[in-house]
Amino acid sequence: MIPERLAKLREQMKKRGITLYVVPTSDFHESEYVGEHFKARKFITGFTGSAGTAVITMDEAGLWTDGRYFVQAAKQLQGTTVTLYKSGEEGVPTIEEYMEKTLKEGDCIGFDGRVVNDAWGNELAKIAQKKKATMYVKEDLIDCVWEDRPAMPHEEAYILEEKYTGRSVSDKIKAVREEMEKQKADLHLLSSLYDIAWLLNVRGNDISYVPVVLSFLAMTKEQCIWFVQEEAINDTVRAYLIQNGIETRPYESFYDYVESIPAGTSILMNTATVNYRVSQSINKDCKIINALEPTTVMKAKKNEVELENIRKAHVKDAVAMCKFMYWLKTNVGKIPMTEISASDYLEALRREQEGCVDLSFDTIAGYAEHGAIVHYAATKETDVELKPEGLLLVDSGGHYLEGTTDITRTFALGPVTYEMKHDFTLVCRCNLNLAAAKFMYGCCGQNLDYLARFPMWAEGKDFNHGTGHGVGYLLNVHEGPNNFHWRINKARPATILEEGMVTTDEPGIYIEGQYGIRIENELICRKGPKTSYGQFMYFENITYVPVDLDALLPEEMTETERELLNTYHKNVYETVSPYLQGEELAWLKHATREI
Amino acid sequence: MIPERLAKLREQMKKRGITLYVVPTSDFHESEYVGEHFKARKFITGFTGSAGTAVITMDEAGLWTDGRYFVQAAKQLQGTTVTLYKSGEEGVPTIEEYMEKTLKEGDCIGFDGRVVNDAWGNELAKIAQKKKATMYVKEDLIDCVWEDRPAMPHEEAYILEEKYTGRSVSDKIKAVREEMEKQKADLHLLSSLYDIAWLLNVRGNDISYVPVVLSFLAMTKEQCIWFVQEEAINDTVRAYLIQNGIETRPYESFYDYVESIPAGTSILMNTATVNYRVSQSINKDCKIINALEPTTVMKAKKNEVELENIRKAHVKDAVAMCKFMYWLKTNVGKIPMTEISASDYLEALRREQEGCVDLSFDTIAGYAEHGAIVHYAATKETDVELKPEGLLLVDSGGHYLEGTTDITRTFALGPVTYEMKHDFTLVCRCNLNLAAAKFMYGCCGQNLDYLARFPMWAEGKDFNHGTGHGVGYLLNVHEGPNNFHWRINKARPATILEEGMVTTDEPGIYIEGQYGIRIENELICRKGPKTSYGQFMYFENITYVPVDLDALLPEEMTETERELLNTYHKNVYETVSPYLQGEELAWLKHATREI
Repeated sequence: MIPERLAKLREQMKKRGITLYVVPTSDFHESEYVGEHFKARKFITGFTGSAGTAVITMDEAGLWTDGRYFVQAAKQLQGTTVTLYKSGEEGVPTIEEYMEKTLKEGDCIGFDGRVVNDAWGNELAKIAQKKKATMYVKEDLIDCVWEDRPAMPHEEAYILEEKYTGRSVSDKIKAVREEMEKQKADLHLLSSLYDIAWLLNVRGNDISYVPVVLSFLAMTKEQCIWFVQEEAINDTVRAYLIQNGIETRPYESFYDYVESIPAGTSILMNTATVNYRVSQSINKDCKIINALEPTTVMKAKKNEVELENIRKAHVKDAVAMCKFMYWLKTNVGKIPMTEISASDYLEALRREQEGCVDLSFDTIAGYAEHGAIVHYAATKETDVELKPEGLLLVDSGGHYLEGTTDITRTFALGPVTYEMKHDFTLVCRCNLNLAAAKFMYGCCGQNLDYLARFPMWAEGKDFNHGTGHGVGYLLNVHEGPNNFHWRINKARPATILEEGMVTTDEPGIYIEGQYGIRIENELICRKGPKTSYGQFMYFENITYVPVDLDALLPEEMTETERELLNTYHKNVYETVSPYLQGEELAWLKHATREI
Repeated sequence: MIPERLAKLREQMKKRGITLYVVPTSDFHESEYVGEHFKARKFITGFTGSAGTAVITMDEAGLWTDGRYFVQAAKQLQGTTVTLYKSGEEGVPTIEEYMEKTLKEGDCIGFDGRVVNDAWGNELAKIAQKKKATMYVKEDLIDCVWEDRPAMPHEEAYILEEKYTGRSVSDKIKAVREEMEKQKADLHLLSSLYDIAWLLNVRGNDISYVPVVLSFLAMTKEQCIWFVQEEAINDTVRAYLIQNGIETRPYESFYDYVESIPAGTSILMNTATVNYRVSQSINKDCKIINALEPTTVMKAKKNEVELENIRKAHVKDAVAMCKFMYWLKTNVGKIPMTEISASDYLEALRREQEGCVDLSFDTIAGYAEHGAIVHYAATKETDVELKPEGLLLVDSGGHYLEGTTDITRTFALGPVTYEMKHDFTLVCRCNLNLAAAKFMYGCCGQNLDYLARFPMWAEGKDFNHGTGHGVGYLLNVHEGPNNFHWRINKARPATILEEGMVTTDEPGIYIEGQYGIRIENELICRKGPKTSYGQFMYFENITYVPVDLDALLPEEMTETERELLNTYHKNVYETVSPYLQGEELAWLKHATREI
């Protein structure tokens, strides 16, 4: 199937004189997850992972993806003629290096300018120039060969009330305009769907698990124009927009609007999220102020109303998770269950909770060796039965009107080996130590990440992913700019941990072919005491689900670590027990016992 | 005295139409410490601290200095008419902000272009341009008013043998040329005195405590030209230079050389260390490659021969320090001693050690409240008697042919309060935890600094200086690029901790008007195990002097911390005991006892 698709694509390339065609994983907004319509890279390679870029020449098709997906990609690319390029591995060229090597004078690089961001588009243009090649970016060639392509989504948008957002749209627009004034911008082009949804206090359903509305936004001192599909706007929303002075225009007309921006306008935009076609449509005599969207930091620092809601969402989520944990550990080996059926059971428990809108991402339920595949999602082909032994890793979350959750627990389904327990204890210690940080205001994730690594590093172990990411409010479960990572580099600018930021704390250990362990809580960054030395900060743990004591070796923890876990479990019991009864309640008491 | 000097300077300024004159603390090489000839800022303000910049207008004279010197500067500026500007304090303008505010159209900024680095010179030029002011940088006005100014130093240079350096000059030159080739540079201009001394394997005596030779260096693929004062070169050194293909030219002729560089030459130089007159002398059609000197990272990564020597130097230094500690604690209250006499006694013990060349900096011996002044150095006026009570902070070090040392210990001279002991224990815990770090290769100081802060941060305390700096080999005791600092910012680029780098570990607590505590060891960064997860690193502690147990509260340490201290003390005893006898030996045994 894939070879046929590639052949058709190459025909189209030949017609246009394109010698190398790039298919990234993106919609027109650099969204992390994309709707079905936009899964062009999956269509042309067969690889279903969330990250990857395909490069197709007349002789070769290559797929670049990262460490999370090496195993999965290798499997899915079998028989497709597509070569796997393992990004970051020694000796593996980057896409740019591959292009430099492959391109000859007179060649032509092609891609759909709407699915490549301005910054990368410019990089590719530079390579083309260097190699005396041309660029062809005005057409989506995949569209020519994808016959039954799903339509562009245009689900109905809805208003998120102020009791959830804590801040009116007019107040947010005012704040953005103040920031524009500071940066001396006449116009702000906003392309990030998360930022638009946050700014307008609206949500939608155009991407699975990410409740956003496919749209662009342009703001001047006087105007706020929302470029959105007609079908998404019902009468209630239309009235709300008019009331707040927000003009709507057709989604597709955004490119015309951009072309019509007068020369000399100074435009604030993030070249990492604005697509290449947009930036190429701007008059060359405009001044581009390339900066993070002002909304990005604003939305990361949750306000008091949001925080109160988020805590409520986490209690609901914890009730679902505790019921699931009870059910799982009580019934495994007694009733049939698989990775998928267990995920479905958990989903049903979440959806029972009042205000639950959706899952916040496709549940990862990885039993035994599947747990070692960091972004595993069971399919009918890979699904396995859960047996009363070994470890099951479950990473899941929900969207509630009160906010978004993300939690990972690893469960002992029966007897587990000493190695499993030892590693589980390491992961638990890493998780506890980071959550217990007390630090001076000004610290970034890079200053604290050691806390989530040192128990492992002391024995030469590590995990090959970041320790934590920001979490949106009924938005993308992965939200910047805050994070926990240790490497200090340009690709990942250091962000000061500000009051109200919510970040996950999710260390793990993955033993390929055997098991995976991850424990993930969410932490609110809070102000602690202010002394003569400065403002101190700490984290409030808002995830209230037991860490499975059946997999833990208390004797391998320090006294301080045991105290941290006991305090955490006491808090879990106090928070969740009012919502459980009978056997479930008795089980929770035992699951949160002192060690 | 100072008002008269300022009046004379203003006369000179008036003659030349200068309205604002800048006097930084620098020689022509951006050296951290400067020789007496270069202490122009001290001459014109009376402030003797190691860091500060004076700005003199017709109506005002201002001195900018940092937190280390606020107390001292306030005292020394009394009666001078010079205003103290506390850098970094809220509401205090930076020098640049002050200039922007003060300058009027037609004004003229003056400074000696040789004592301002290229980067800052350009910043000042921009401000001048913006305010429509002019620049006058070709003369040293202080020279016109400083009658008995000390002459330029030109002490004899000497060769540091390969048994000390571990690497021949020709090998080092080759390595620099390779780096030049990588960076596509035709010419490398080297202005940093430390880098020149390291590169040529020579040392001198032109700056107190910093054994360097006042000079510049220019290197092409074929030539290596050392611009050095005739008087510094004796016959042995001359023969050595000829043998190694190093040409010498007069020191002052460097500016002519720079002027004569042909247009089109690509020049590798660090604009943060090359002075403004040099950079202004370069033909505008040359290409400047602004980068860290290639020698900077090379010299920071000590080779195996250097490391073996450094360990030896530290044993010698430890013997001197242990003898001092024994003498101090045994005799205080029995024989008269003051901050200065104790420092002198320690200096004599160091100089007794074979291969001791000099002290590596002016000893800081701060008794009681003097300990809280971070860069205190006792003068006749401030010297106080040491009594058998309270805390004495001693920060000192030596230059040996085998390397440079830097150590701080804080001693209980008799009864000390609970607060003192509590704070001493905090500092000790911070010091121990950082030294015990086990980390993945790739970590920078910013990733680990939390270890040297968290015991304090947990109770809202902190210290207002970096935790550690690199140490030169018979060079500047403060050497980049490695360091321990937590703040991530452009002013302090993150440097990966490489094998062979030597960095100090010196947390402290300072209670103004009461006492100061600092404990400082030096750590070699070493390769640990390489596992499937990557290369792990650890620190080897090379400072072998007891931490004063009389000031410690073992019950306020964790079990792990007590073990770390016991292991450290065991190592101290094993290392130093072969060099002590009788009562000193018995004392060492007790001073390093298990807790």
